[in-house]
Amino acid sequence: MAIITLTTDFGEKDHFVGATKGAIYSELPDVRIVDISHSVSPFNILEAGYITQNAYKSFPKGSIHIIGIDSELNEENKHIAVKLDDHYFICANNGIMSMICTEIVPEKIVEINIHDKIQTSFPVLDVFVKVACHIARGGTLEVIGKSIPEIKPIKNITPFVNDDKNQILGNVIYVDNYGNVITNIKRTFFESVQKGRAFEILARHYKFKKIYHKYSDIINFAIPEDQRHDEGRGMVVFNSGGFLEIAVYKSNSATVGSASTLMGLKLMDTVSVKFINESLLPKGFEDLEIEE
Amino acid sequence: MAIITLTTDFGEKDHFVGATKGAIYSELPDVRIVDISHSVSPFNILEAGYITQNAYKSFPKGSIHIIGIDSELNEENKHIAVKLDDHYFICANNGIMSMICTEIVPEKIVEINIHDKIQTSFPVLDVFVKVACHIARGGTLEVIGKSIPEIKPIKNITPFVNDDKNQILGNVIYVDNYGNVITNIKRTFFESVQKGRAFEILARHYKFKKIYHKYSDIINFAIPEDQRHDEGRGMVVFNSGGFLEIAVYKSNSATVGSASTLMGLKLMDTVSVKFINESLLPKGFEDLEIEE
Amino acid sequence: MAIITLTTDFGEKDHFVGATKGAIYSELPDVRIVDISHSVSPFNILEAGYITQNAYKSFPKGSIHIIGIDSELNEENKHIAVKLDDHYFICANNGIMSMICTEIVPEKIVEINIHDKIQTSFPVLDVFVKVACHIARGGTLEVIGKSIPEIKPIKNITPFVNDDKNQILGNVIYVDNYGNVITNIKRTFFESVQKGRAFEILARHYKFKKIYHKYSDIINFAIPEDQRHDEGRGMVVFNSGGFLEIAVYKSNSATVGSASTLMGLKLMDTVSVKFINESLLPKGFEDLEIEE
Repeated sequence: MAIITLTTDFGEKDHFVGATKGAIYSELPDVRIVDISHSVSPFNILEAGYITQNAYKSFPKGSIHIIGIDSELNEENKHIAVKLDDHYFICANNGIMSMICTEIVPEKIVEINIHDKIQTSFPVLDVFVKVACHIARGGTLEVIGKSIPEIKPIKNITPFVNDDKNQILGNVIYVDNYGNVITNIKRTFFESVQKGRAFEILARHYKFKKIYHKYSDIINFAIPEDQRHDEGRGMVVFNSGGFLEIAVYKSNSATVGSASTLMGLKLMDTVSVKFINESLLPKGFEDLEIEE
Repeated sequence: MAIITLTTDFGEKDHFVGATKGAIYSELPDVRIVDISHSVSPFNILEAGYITQNAYKSFPKGSIHIIGIDSELNEENKHIAVKLDDHYFICANNGIMSMICTEIVPEKIVEINIHDKIQTSFPVLDVFVKVACHIARGGTLEVIGKSIPEIKPIKNITPFVNDDKNQILGNVIYVDNYGNVITNIKRTFFESVQKGRAFEILARHYKFKKIYHKYSDIINFAIPEDQRHDEGRGMVVFNSGGFLEIAVYKSNSATVGSASTLMGLKLMDTVSVKFINESLLPKGFEDLEIEE
Repeated sequence: MAIITLTTDFGEKDHFVGATKGAIYSELPDVRIVDISHSVSPFNILEAGYITQNAYKSFPKGSIHIIGIDSELNEENKHIAVKLDDHYFICANNGIMSMICTEIVPEKIVEINIHDKIQTSFPVLDVFVKVACHIARGGTLEVIGKSIPEIKPIKNITPFVNDDKNQILGNVIYVDNYGNVITNIKRTFFESVQKGRAFEILARHYKFKKIYHKYSDIINFAIPEDQRHDEGRGMVVFNSGGFLEIAVYKSNSATVGSASTLMGLKLMDTVSVKFINESLLPKGFEDLEIEE
């Protein structure tokens, strides 16, 4: 039996998530429902796209992902179902899928047309659940919608490279539970522009010259544990999703602070990378290269 | 196998929810447990009633709903199990069930008497789980309790109508994840008093003359998207549960604001509806009527 | 099929929990995954230990508990799998298990060595899931690690008794969803030092001479309900986990206040118990004894 995942901005308190699950189990008693997140900031498409993109890949092929963000049907906000990477996604055509579709070409996109005269202020329950259960029972997308060639894009999801190819301008697209600040600069993209050059990463008035593999690589284990001051130090990593992330070692926004609180970095703030022509470097600059 | 749902004020952090689930699975390895909410405000019976009432209907008949709010057993706070609308509810007799029982007559109410000498500060784990598993195995309510004729009522769950039948006085009973403010005025009740008349809805110093079907009905699609100012506008809808709700289009308490933050509406605040005798209306007042 | 539980500091918003579940279901479609908590404060080992210790006992024997707190692998933070009380625990060797291991001797501890060249900043997904699925399939700990004699201890988890055996010095180790303040003084330990003597419990400038069985025992039911002032009163109980807890009756940090907010008690604050030689007591002091 298929898996149906839920990503919404419903929050943890209201009845919306419970009601949605009840409706799914009423149709399919044996299906497996998995919560991805219900704490997306209200109407925040960028966050929903980031979370979905990073979560879906761990699920088995054939999984069905309901994304309930800004999903009220109207003439500018149609409902779509997308088959991509052997997964199914059901959401509004409001840009949520564009982050995923930028990287992987969808196999099929349909605009859902099962609404007839459904007038609803709870489309996840009244529409998305029906579509998800249809797919879970082995139904095809053609039955519940008409094929469309492409989805609606959103701005600001791809970073900008200047004409001289020596600078990337990116944005903060997500702040995680640890207060770490995630940009739209992916490792593959970064390396395709870098071409082995040294670099400086700039975020507000902070500068970083090194990208770590994992957080604890910042520790110098040669120093005795009680003489170290690594907690609270700023650093840059490519996170587990492959995104350039400005982090603080063992951060906690509520106590020691985090990249977000300590450096004042917020959603959509600019993060830039400046690449340096090696021939201009002074001696001993090799430690600025990305670690391998 | 039956479904057991959980609605509590345990929060998302503590071990209480996990321990409860472990106890259920220890008794019934194949049961399905569904979280409705664990973020009910501590001891808030009204919130718990609102959430339960809106969530349970989506579940299959025969589902068992544990409501763990203010459930410590004492001489004034007995435990009950209620069969209603072909669903089972297990909770303390502290008023939680009165919102649901006002609308639908219970088929059976029993006061649970399996406690013997259980002295516990965790009655959900030690009592409600046992009762739920008993019911899930097909057991009857008579085995675990003695029949009682009615449940304990709570105040403020039904709105007041004046003698002239031209005004409803209601209260805010819930503030949802979007900061939308929900009253105890249900659509069926509203319409039974309205009898087709125009109306004004008053909340603090805000006045509304229209009730929308869904949130995005506030948009005037004739105006180009970049010239609209709909986000952040106040509006009234009957929400998906049928309750009169004061909303803000695309609200977010943390950023653009919400009905709760922008209008300063809090739990138990008064919301009134004044009905207007049509013959007294000036011309062109027809747009004040409720949309159909 | 086994149960795998999850206790992490991943929070409710990010993709980490969903991704972890997807990876487990990809390996074992029929396993049961139960969330214990994802709201442990970032990197807070004491909280994670407290939550795990209180939750795991409700689960069936053979359950597998993943604890994802501060789990990045490095030379000072190895990964372990522990069999204890017929349950399995998978976590970093950073002290999390010491609270549980202090009470129950582990049957087996192995240091996980399946990493080979896994370079990961998401060890729960890349390592703990593999180990959990191995155990769920009936695999032994010897296959995924090498036996080690003991786990890493943490400080401050056991209270201190003075030489005269008339005082216990404990600490606040957890603040729960109701703002109740939980100490590291367990009932069994308390009684072993008490030996039937009267006592005073001191926390900041608050003093308590009685320990209640359950919260509502503070109510005097002889007084009519509308003349009581029990809500908001401070009290001490042994909670359902057996820990000495300073509570406020029907507390809510956001409204009426809680032990944490009203008394200003924070994590690691000192709570002491002074035992009183009965022969020195004035007459009528017997009500200070612990209730039985």
